[in-house]
Parts: sequence; C-alpha cells; structure tokens
Amino acid sequence: MSFGGFVEDLTPTTEIERLEVLHAPLAAAVRELIDATIRTTVDDEDVVAAIAEVQATTRRLRSSQLPGAAGVRFNHEGRSWGWGNAVVGLRNPLAPPLDIVHDPSGLASADFFLGAAYEGPPGLVHGGISALLMDQVMGETASQFTRVTMTGTLTLRYLRGTPLGALRIEARIDREEGRKVIVVAHIGDADGPCVEAEGIFVIPRWSLAEGDPRLG
Amino acid sequence: MSFGGFVEDLTPTTEIERLEVLHAPLAAAVRELIDATIRTTVDDEDVVAAIAEVQATTRRLRSSQLPGAAGVRFNHEGRSWGWGNAVVGLRNPLAPPLDIVHDPSGLASADFFLGAAYEGPPGLVHGGISALLMDQVMGETASQFTRVTMTGTLTLRYLRGTPLGALRIEARIDREEGRKVIVVAHIGDADGPCVEAEGIFVIPRWSLAEGDPRLG
Repeated sequence: MSFGGFVEDLTPTTEIERLEVLHAPLAAAVRELIDATIRTTVDDEDVVAAIAEVQATTRRLRSSQLPGAAGVRFNHEGRSWGWGNAVVGLRNPLAPPLDIVHDPSGLASADFFLGAAYEGPPGLVHGGISALLMDQVMGETASQFTRVTMTGTLTLRYLRGTPLGALRIEARIDREEGRKVIVVAHIGDADGPCVEAEGIFVIPRWSLAEGDPRLG
Repeated sequence: MSFGGFVEDLTPTTEIERLEVLHAPLAAAVRELIDATIRTTVDDEDVVAAIAEVQATTRRLRSSQLPGAAGVRFNHEGRSWGWGNAVVGLRNPLAPPLDIVHDPSGLASADFFLGAAYEGPPGLVHGGISALLMDQVMGETASQFTRVTMTGTLTLRYLRGTPLGALRIEARIDREEGRKVIVVAHIGDADGPCVEAEGIFVIPRWSLAEGDPRLG
C-alpha cells in the first residue's frame, strides 16, 4: 500500500530504531569525508589512493541496495521515517541534518552548524542553502505533522550575508486563510537574522473531508 | 590581497587545471558514496566496516588541509575558481555539480541529473533543492561574470512536484531598473516547468564608479 508516494513498511519500530543507531554514524562519517574532500591539500598519491578507497567502500555498500531513492515509509505503529530527506534525513550525508524542535507554542526552531560544504560567496552560506533549510522547517511548521500541506510560493529576502558556522532557524505560522497556511521564518547567527522568508503552503482539496468549510 | 572575501592566489592556470583533473574524480567518487550510503541494505558488519574505511580515508585527506572553507580564489592570469561552491563547486561532493552554459543570447541553462541525495517528498526533488540550484544559475545570470550582484529577494512558485531524474534549469534577465537586475528562471523535466522563480539582484553602490547614473 502507498499513499501519495508514502510506502507501507512492516518493519517494527524497535528494528527501525536499531537501524538508525547503526546507520547514523555512517552518514556522519561521510559528512566528515565531504568536508575533507573539499579542504584537503595532500599530495597527488594520497588523492589517487583516496579515490580507490572511496570506490571500494561504495562497492561494498552497493552490493545490496534499494532500487531507487529512500522515499518515506510508515509502519503499523504510527512511526514514519524519511531517511533520505536532503535536510533532515538521518542517512543522507548532504543533510546537516537539521534537528527541528516543534514547541507547543507553535515555534519551530533548529540550531546547527554549517561548514565548508555549504559555501556560496567566500566564507558565507550559499543563499540557496538558506532557502533549502528554511523550506523544510517551514513545511513541517505548516503541516504540524497532522495534515498534508504543499509549498505554493516561497519568498526570501536577503538582509546580509549568512556566515558559515553556528546558525539558527525559527519559523511559525503567521495566519491561515482557507486552504492557505502562511508561515514566516528566518535564518541567522548570534547577531540576528540574515535571511527572512514567507511561505504560502496549500492544503490540497483531496486531503480534506467532504463538507469541510475550506472546500468552499 | 583579498577583495570581498576573494583571495589572490599565485598558482598558475596550468597548475589549477592539473589540480582539477586530479580532484574532480575524488569529488565524483564521494558523490557515488553519498548515494550508496542512503540506499544501502547491506548487513550490519558491512555498515560497521564501511564506517571504519570512510574514517581512515578522511584521516588521510585531513593530514594536510585548508584551515577553513575553500572560498573563491583568483590568479594573475584572470582565472578564478570556487571549488567549494555548494552548487557548481568541482571539489564539493554536495554539488551535482551544475555545468551552467551562458549563451550569447543571454539564456543561461544547465542540464543535470538528481538522484537519491536530493529527495524531499517521496520520489521528488526537495523543494528547497530546486531553490538552491536556481539561486546559483540566476545569480550568475545577473552578474554575467562582469559585475558584482547580490541576491535581494527570491520568489519561488511551485507548480507541481519535480521528479528525481533528468532535469533542466533555464534563466534569463527579464529587465534592469537602476541598480536592480530582475532575473526569471524555471526548473523542469521533459514535461515542462515544475517550479518558476523570479529574483531581484542588486548591484552594490560600492561596486559602481563615481558618476555612474545608477548611483542617482
């Protein structure tokens, strides 16, 4: 069974949690390797040796693998997991990964560190990386994990360069208008916001029960 | 000497090109490893062995490395290089990397393939990844590599889900208003656009010569 691309998976939650403990350190190790790949100044022989080593490890991991992307799965215990997500995926080395805290007051926030892999202008976070990370936090904020929402529009205002290093994102729902959920957010450092965002997330008609006033 | 974070580097262009040929395959190998890390279903012992292998390669590469991020460098022959850029960086395994073609007519375009590492919703490109990639193409289009431009605002309209796979981005300057350069773009597949974008890029005052009418 699948639902909007979400795949039913009978793996029990205890096994999911065991696999997370097993795989999280692999993704973390590959994140370190990404950073080292960008920053290394070793001799040619070491670069050539590193290529062969990485290819051997890749062959080992590819000896048994999913036919495609990780997708999002759910089991019968109400647990879902999206290990490949580019922002929060536990098994995706591209993802910082963000650990997003959803406060009962409605505030969503994440504190994280961005290094060499996320650079755009010299020493600064790529403007598109700020967009990427805020999109995820804002989407989760809109859905509150209780409803389906899809990004309609996203508007970003760049106030100043975002320095690589320790950063924070905050997001909250500003208002709702029928099937539209308007979310505001910012990314910044200790000196305050660097980029502000406003997103309009849409609750699809098909996800609402017949008679819902928002179907108006 | 440095200029807005850009660092002067006396390495001759011939050596830069030799280093690119040496390092591009390392970044490419790590991109494959990222994909394998997400998709692997090997036994526990293989995951544990892979972690140790990746850590050993990282130690090898870190035995000599830059103190921080790669930045953007330029030499005396008019060559500049930003190997760590998150979208186009030749040595950044996070970057697909995009090979952006700037047509004399003003059209900028890139054809590329996105796999498991760029997933958001199941089977689809993360909405923020579309924003990230378009931001880079649009910024290059605004600057035309002949002037300094900074992202002011970026607005994204999500028309439909962007499938993982073969994709294309196109961007062009729509108009210029004083120090503002307005760029339009889209990302799409063989069936047409999935996400449309409009960006306002600003030419900073400090980059213009005294008496430039745009300083008015």
